[in-house]
Amino acid sequence: MAGSTFGTIFRISTWGESHGKGVGVVVDGCPAGLPLCEEDIQVYLDRRKPGQSKFATPRKEEDAVEILSGVFEGKTTGTPISMIVFNHTQRSKDYSDIANYYRPGHADYTFDEKYGFRDYRGGGRSSGRETIARVAAGAIAAKLLKELGIQVYAYTKSIGDIEIDNSRFNLEERLENPVCMPDAEAAGLAQELLSEKMKEKDSVGGVVECVVKNLMPGVGEPVFDKLDAKLGQALFSIGAVKAVEIGAGFKAAKMCGSQDNDQFYMDNGKVCKRTNNAGGILGGISDGSDVVIRAAFKPTASIFQTQNTINKNHENIEINIKGRHDPIIVPRAVVVVEAMTAITVLDLLLVSMTSTLSGIQKFFKK
Amino acid sequence: MAGSTFGTIFRISTWGESHGKGVGVVVDGCPAGLPLCEEDIQVYLDRRKPGQSKFATPRKEEDAVEILSGVFEGKTTGTPISMIVFNHTQRSKDYSDIANYYRPGHADYTFDEKYGFRDYRGGGRSSGRETIARVAAGAIAAKLLKELGIQVYAYTKSIGDIEIDNSRFNLEERLENPVCMPDAEAAGLAQELLSEKMKEKDSVGGVVECVVKNLMPGVGEPVFDKLDAKLGQALFSIGAVKAVEIGAGFKAAKMCGSQDNDQFYMDNGKVCKRTNNAGGILGGISDGSDVVIRAAFKPTASIFQTQNTINKNHENIEINIKGRHDPIIVPRAVVVVEAMTAITVLDLLLVSMTSTLSGIQKFFKK
Amino acid sequence: MAGSTFGTIFRISTWGESHGKGVGVVVDGCPAGLPLCEEDIQVYLDRRKPGQSKFATPRKEEDAVEILSGVFEGKTTGTPISMIVFNHTQRSKDYSDIANYYRPGHADYTFDEKYGFRDYRGGGRSSGRETIARVAAGAIAAKLLKELGIQVYAYTKSIGDIEIDNSRFNLEERLENPVCMPDAEAAGLAQELLSEKMKEKDSVGGVVECVVKNLMPGVGEPVFDKLDAKLGQALFSIGAVKAVEIGAGFKAAKMCGSQDNDQFYMDNGKVCKRTNNAGGILGGISDGSDVVIRAAFKPTASIFQTQNTINKNHENIEINIKGRHDPIIVPRAVVVVEAMTAITVLDLLLVSMTSTLSGIQKFFKK
Amino acid sequence: MAGSTFGTIFRISTWGESHGKGVGVVVDGCPAGLPLCEEDIQVYLDRRKPGQSKFATPRKEEDAVEILSGVFEGKTTGTPISMIVFNHTQRSKDYSDIANYYRPGHADYTFDEKYGFRDYRGGGRSSGRETIARVAAGAIAAKLLKELGIQVYAYTKSIGDIEIDNSRFNLEERLENPVCMPDAEAAGLAQELLSEKMKEKDSVGGVVECVVKNLMPGVGEPVFDKLDAKLGQALFSIGAVKAVEIGAGFKAAKMCGSQDNDQFYMDNGKVCKRTNNAGGILGGISDGSDVVIRAAFKPTASIFQTQNTINKNHENIEINIKGRHDPIIVPRAVVVVEAMTAITVLDLLLVSMTSTLSGIQKFFKK
Repeated sequence: MAGSTFGTIFRISTWGESHGKGVGVVVDGCPAGLPLCEEDIQVYLDRRKPGQSKFATPRKEEDAVEILSGVFEGKTTGTPISMIVFNHTQRSKDYSDIANYYRPGHADYTFDEKYGFRDYRGGGRSSGRETIARVAAGAIAAKLLKELGIQVYAYTKSIGDIEIDNSRFNLEERLENPVCMPDAEAAGLAQELLSEKMKEKDSVGGVVECVVKNLMPGVGEPVFDKLDAKLGQALFSIGAVKAVEIGAGFKAAKMCGSQDNDQFYMDNGKVCKRTNNAGGILGGISDGSDVVIRAAFKPTASIFQTQNTINKNHENIEINIKGRHDPIIVPRAVVVVEAMTAITVLDLLLVSMTSTLSGIQKFFKK
Repeated sequence: MAGSTFGTIFRISTWGESHGKGVGVVVDGCPAGLPLCEEDIQVYLDRRKPGQSKFATPRKEEDAVEILSGVFEGKTTGTPISMIVFNHTQRSKDYSDIANYYRPGHADYTFDEKYGFRDYRGGGRSSGRETIARVAAGAIAAKLLKELGIQVYAYTKSIGDIEIDNSRFNLEERLENPVCMPDAEAAGLAQELLSEKMKEKDSVGGVVECVVKNLMPGVGEPVFDKLDAKLGQALFSIGAVKAVEIGAGFKAAKMCGSQDNDQFYMDNGKVCKRTNNAGGILGGISDGSDVVIRAAFKPTASIFQTQNTINKNHENIEINIKGRHDPIIVPRAVVVVEAMTAITVLDLLLVSMTSTLSGIQKFFKK
Repeated sequence: MAGSTFGTIFRISTWGESHGKGVGVVVDGCPAGLPLCEEDIQVYLDRRKPGQSKFATPRKEEDAVEILSGVFEGKTTGTPISMIVFNHTQRSKDYSDIANYYRPGHADYTFDEKYGFRDYRGGGRSSGRETIARVAAGAIAAKLLKELGIQVYAYTKSIGDIEIDNSRFNLEERLENPVCMPDAEAAGLAQELLSEKMKEKDSVGGVVECVVKNLMPGVGEPVFDKLDAKLGQALFSIGAVKAVEIGAGFKAAKMCGSQDNDQFYMDNGKVCKRTNNAGGILGGISDGSDVVIRAAFKPTASIFQTQNTINKNHENIEINIKGRHDPIIVPRAVVVVEAMTAITVLDLLLVSMTSTLSGIQKFFKK
Repeated sequence: MAGSTFGTIFRISTWGESHGKGVGVVVDGCPAGLPLCEEDIQVYLDRRKPGQSKFATPRKEEDAVEILSGVFEGKTTGTPISMIVFNHTQRSKDYSDIANYYRPGHADYTFDEKYGFRDYRGGGRSSGRETIARVAAGAIAAKLLKELGIQVYAYTKSIGDIEIDNSRFNLEERLENPVCMPDAEAAGLAQELLSEKMKEKDSVGGVVECVVKNLMPGVGEPVFDKLDAKLGQALFSIGAVKAVEIGAGFKAAKMCGSQDNDQFYMDNGKVCKRTNNAGGILGGISDGSDVVIRAAFKPTASIFQTQNTINKNHENIEINIKGRHDPIIVPRAVVVVEAMTAITVLDLLLVSMTSTLSGIQKFFKK
């Protein structure tokens, strides 16, 4: 199937492998007239770039984006925007041995079972480099949402057991530390934890939280294309995500209705809610308060301890993974979560324009 | 948008409101030759039927399904299967007052904002009755999967703080108690909790777990139509679900790679894994072990305590919800989770038949 | 696949067989607020009803539509509109013999090859009754288009060699004669031809033309969802259609560019074209002039002459088809063409609302 | 909307403008294991290359394809195949004046109306160069079909009034003359006609016919995704196509049922038809005989005669188009028709694998 396509109106199709010629994306259905240049995309890509700290792989990837179509005289034309990031610095030899065995926690085995063989170099299509395409498309979605007054931002909420303290929350701080935490103190502790785990040749997981501010009510389509349902698909589609929560999330399962229900009230003529356990979504439709969503990432599967597994000949073996691997995925995944959220919200926002006859009549009235 | 449609090959389109003429579903793309009768569907619907215990609404709903098309001489024909459950016992007067205000935790406000008005009777399209259509379609998917040797079953994992103990796990037990728990002792405690909360005019949430057994490796399409991504959409599309986990889920975020990685090994010529933190899915593709997924349900939004909210005129008011409402959604949602899981797995299984040229050649060879 | 679904925003899913319990359609994505009642649908269905003249089958079909969902207090709610027409008067015995052989010109053979067996009663899913669902959905699309000032109408252009003369064109006339021709004289000749062919136990084909008036420029999405491409799919999906033309159609292939090019000019501040060989579509996008499209229908496949064919055991046999069959499909297909055109135009019109950032900004500005 | 995407399982997404950096396509859902190299694609692209005769534009376009992903060790991997053809030789100055007016027969006006502005260089997205992406994708589809024993080929059937004579039909001949006619004599007459029209600064239209041989019965999904319906969309999506016919096409509208019905008979244990007026498709499903389809192309819109039109300021003006333009589109469009047909047939063939439970069971049986 066309599993590499996402979205109904604002639709993206991604392609590329870790060690092929490059990775890229075609963004179809982007409205015309949005000012756009490569720098708009590059600032997003730079946030997921490796080699920025000792907790990220020391590979130097250029990850320079090129826009190939869909932009003319500095504005989107309404036709497909094709973007490419060429692969430059792969050292294929690093990966030659993984051709013959199945790394625990990776997709080697399932790709072989599904397709009969696989591009084993650096994980091929299942590599984290695939997310470059998402981030490039997300940068466009985020820019368009911004033109409508809507902001999307994500940050690291926790790494292992270290969680940010909301009383110290400072959004700017997330760009100041290598773990993307909006809390300097937690960021310090998290870095200590990571250093420790690196010494142990081990890796750690964590949680990313994403917020959408100023989204108008009415976005999301009952029943299967609910805003939360499509966000669920979007975030679970990111490699290494094992859980997704909206609003109170799992905590809601332990709450009583009298605690969980967000009470509406009027404040200066504005509809407000006392709490936001719903995470800004009721019945699958945005309610005007912040959309709050979280994704849990498993620890990096590539660790440097000796591991047991099997090879292609279905024999039990021991392996020692080489190469360069982040001890944690989370900090670099923050912008990926942000991108997927922006893409999803924009797509459903565009769809929501057709919800009422009166809205359509107003639109076409000269 | 066509938000009421789900699936690529095995595609369902649902319709209907709580107090309209009925609810139904069109199942398109069901392969021909599956033996099917209304009783096959009815046994699934009966599992979500209200009025079966004191913890479920005392409304007596018939919920008798009728197959209108797509079955001939006892077998599916490959053409759309239309199914309907007529609504019989609604008392519209119970709901007349909710026309004018927005119940906390419900979709009243967002439907009005999106569509300009809403069918307020019993929640209209956002009512739990909408899930009848999913269960009817899921019964077909489950039956077809069974013909391929694949089982899908769900059960209540927790209610409030009461969680089943795996040492007492007994799948048969889930059909023996009104809370659908596969653990008689936990079921007893959960019923005590529910009785207490009912006295307090309050409600409780919980968690449903679902397992897919004997699924072959290779099901799921990278990148956006991964098996976990589509299951994420499927489960988040169920009303009241606020979180979804695969395998180790949120726990994976606190684990080290050395703990989380499932080691492969050979056992009597069969590929096995020492653990199943991945929940049966690697890189979005089934790996041959059990698929394990969980959904967290918030507590029933309709509680009998006095609540603060606003009305349609945007004035602060107090309300007292009347009518008949379950103090918990979870036990009746178990079969809905099962249904959505079966639909998703079947759809991606059908798609996976086109993964390799050699498979296609084998299929068409005479 | 889900072959019974059409449309992206305004999406229809049809179901039902000739001799099953009924035929129906779920219309998903219809904007909220459209006044709608069953009578709005019925007037369209009555136009395709059989038994209205000696050239149409004498079966008395009720074809009374029932709206099951999606309408509340006389207006569409934005949720799926389910409609059903129950089958009443089928005499299954008429069709019992066709279970065992393959009628020339029918889908008996291909359904058996594809699905392994078929509902043979009256053609099952491939019966003309399937179009009831399209007409019901089309009635809604046409009503919504009318609210936007857009008209869609079709008529018989030719039957066999008898073609309407544009100098006598009178749209009202098409409802006055049993062959739906907007030219009384041609209609008379066509009826003579039909009487003659009925005596010869034979059938005739013809051409339906459809016009969309007052469609704004800008509707249609390059490259594969061009307005003409989707109209092409829509009309070819109608049983018995063997050719489709836009504007000058096949004649354009014999023209020179200097003849075919429609010259633009200004008339009282309005953009006009001297000719309309393009049929109102340039580059797949509506240009503001009339959209003109034609579909050619083959003669009714069921004729009463003795025919040679094969049976299910793959033996050569002679057959004599019984039952009641129109000697021509065209007059009853006129409203089907109109319906499919309205559905297609509306869907792409809704999509076109997202073409520009400035349009989106205007839409969401409070 | 995502108008640049086509297909359900074998899905293509195209991008690029005439004078941008390049044109390209992402082919998603191509089964793994197909041997594929750039030369396989290039031979198809070379068939649409301009500059090959005096009847094609003298522009020298390289049109060298590069495969960027989805192929590893000479075989497709099942992941998206991204292909690009860089634009090299455009002379943008040739087109600078058309920025300000609307050429008759072109999409200049409708693009401006839809998107607010357009990339005017060489027609931008509506240029014939867009078809490069289709041909590249079609080459893959055709190669895969060939592995299944299915051939797809197209040729020029007529140019202006000059039509091939079936008694002189010689398929090899189509590659021997610059008008792609499988009839040397007709090809000669057509070239005379073209020379004459070039002297008159005019252009001519024509008809392309395409045949699919050895397609198994059972391909095509009732009701809206019939094989003919999707072929209709596919061919109408090609710029300049104004009509499409299947089998007898428009002639069927003038035939009697006794002439049009294709009689089945057995020949050496094989199901055969005496005629093929159905064009290999009954009820939207392939019947095992040749699929025959035709597309009518209008004459090239760019002619060198003085024409009347309007400019962006909505003033009447006279224009003289410059640059290099083919006097006919047809010969270079032959391979485009072939490509779109192959893509459509392959996609529906893959879908048809899920038609029956017994087929699915056989597929998964070990």
